[in-house]
Amino acid sequence: MHKVIFDTDPGVDDAMALLFLHHHREIDLLGITTVFGNATIETTTRNALFLKREWKIDAPVARGAGETFIPHRVSHEPPKFIHGDDGLGNIGVPEIIDIPVDPRSAHRFIVETVRANPGEVTLVAVGRMTNLANALKEDPGITELVKEVVVMGGAFDVNGNVTPAAEANIHGDPEAADMVFTANWPVVIVGLDVTTQTVMTRRQLADIRDAAGSSRARLLFDLSQFYIKFYESRVPDGMVVHDSCACVYVVAPHLFTTRSGSVRVVCGGIADGQTIQKPDYIGFGPSAWDHLPSQRICTGIDANGVLKLIHDTIASVAED
Amino acid sequence: MHKVIFDTDPGVDDAMALLFLHHHREIDLLGITTVFGNATIETTTRNALFLKREWKIDAPVARGAGETFIPHRVSHEPPKFIHGDDGLGNIGVPEIIDIPVDPRSAHRFIVETVRANPGEVTLVAVGRMTNLANALKEDPGITELVKEVVVMGGAFDVNGNVTPAAEANIHGDPEAADMVFTANWPVVIVGLDVTTQTVMTRRQLADIRDAAGSSRARLLFDLSQFYIKFYESRVPDGMVVHDSCACVYVVAPHLFTTRSGSVRVVCGGIADGQTIQKPDYIGFGPSAWDHLPSQRICTGIDANGVLKLIHDTIASVAED
Repeated sequence: MHKVIFDTDPGVDDAMALLFLHHHREIDLLGITTVFGNATIETTTRNALFLKREWKIDAPVARGAGETFIPHRVSHEPPKFIHGDDGLGNIGVPEIIDIPVDPRSAHRFIVETVRANPGEVTLVAVGRMTNLANALKEDPGITELVKEVVVMGGAFDVNGNVTPAAEANIHGDPEAADMVFTANWPVVIVGLDVTTQTVMTRRQLADIRDAAGSSRARLLFDLSQFYIKFYESRVPDGMVVHDSCACVYVVAPHLFTTRSGSVRVVCGGIADGQTIQKPDYIGFGPSAWDHLPSQRICTGIDANGVLKLIHDTIASVAED
Repeated sequence: MHKVIFDTDPGVDDAMALLFLHHHREIDLLGITTVFGNATIETTTRNALFLKREWKIDAPVARGAGETFIPHRVSHEPPKFIHGDDGLGNIGVPEIIDIPVDPRSAHRFIVETVRANPGEVTLVAVGRMTNLANALKEDPGITELVKEVVVMGGAFDVNGNVTPAAEANIHGDPEAADMVFTANWPVVIVGLDVTTQTVMTRRQLADIRDAAGSSRARLLFDLSQFYIKFYESRVPDGMVVHDSCACVYVVAPHLFTTRSGSVRVVCGGIADGQTIQKPDYIGFGPSAWDHLPSQRICTGIDANGVLKLIHDTIASVAED
């Protein structure tokens, strides 16, 4: 079993990733921590509670950061044109969800849960890295206690998606990401290099709904339609399932190829938020990448294998 | 015929590129302008004069910049471990070459030659972009008169070679490169994405020497040995012929595939000197790449075709 804390900003592809984690038999979901990004922290937290309730998820929801690790950072408007005004495809999520949020902040929840499960917790972070950076700041010792950090974010040998240089999750809080990637814990980064290859077609999404035959899968189908609309001009058919890729990595790393090397994030300037790796097998002169832990970035993916695993996992639980 | 000004910092692979230009029947070499980089400006200018004399090149040599476009830039030591103490593989270039240098500075030579040949001059720049930036500063109107600028430099979808982010020519003067790439003239950038695929083996270099049967080719062979030694730990056999790739592009663009989009250079920070393109076919939010001319970068190369053309061209002139 993989004990997982899911750090997320739901978000449409976050919702699919959450249902994947919830339904996968080898995942023990310890908690859901929210962060701003795809929507405000109020909205992403509300959405996490909504999905927890609708999908009958036991794990608690802890509310996290609503601003960048360095507070004076210029913040950007949430991408409502991608995830909808409500962050879940404008399906009309109720304003108030009448189940309690965890009393702890996200970063405190992470610290306490990691300390309570030494060596066992995998952090799956698919939004901005702010909560993880705040956790590191509060308790640097957790680096030795976390099993693995799996991140959806960044763009290494390809362009970004917010700017030509930067991917959205990292662009949204570059200093936090640089802190997470250079910390002395094992990080695997699942970035645009591989996620953009992982396009679920409309038919595949409908197949999941029909195979599962549950209201859960119907909700997933419905909330994804706005997001699919956004992708109409970007992929031939369907949607990129960024966040699910990181969750699939946890249980099926054999579907990915990786490259090892220290990773830095550009903070400031025209390339603000760009991720750059120094591959271990290449020699360079002295640089800002020296003497830092080697992390793995994904350079290849068996996209069909990933899509099939998402299908089979979500469809594996039919009852409501 | 292609009228070419060759802006260069010889440099071993610069020497091969120069001999290629000199021997190619469709190239009319109007001038050689020197720049610091592979060695100091004194050494690269001396080397250009040496090669001009040894290879009986008519084109004048004009001495160019010895420091970056923005003077307060930290400068780096010349890479003597790559090109030798004398910049030409430690073959023992005489200290003084008794032929005259052009009385004009490189950037003035460029401006005057372009103005004298409106619409006809191709600038092939295989060192730092300093001379071109100085020419643009002195006479911005040349952008409308230059036929094409072909640059060896940068690294787009691959790592750099000086740092994980930056390639040497661009890293050596980022502000100059940013000015050249964002100016309103047609630029083609032949970067590490393709040049590192273009490895001439020891045997191929010996074949050129033997096929040409000239002292010119023997000199090229001899001065390349130190550079080949540097590459021993980097390629299976031989040497990367970076600068020749840019020259080959001028006469055989069909050996390359390119991608269009505006190009910026990161100036300052950990990614100092990194080149980033915004491909025309991808949409982004507002960024520092907006409203700039679309330039072409090379993304693919027929390396064997390029190597064969270098062989055939240099070997095509046997007599001394």
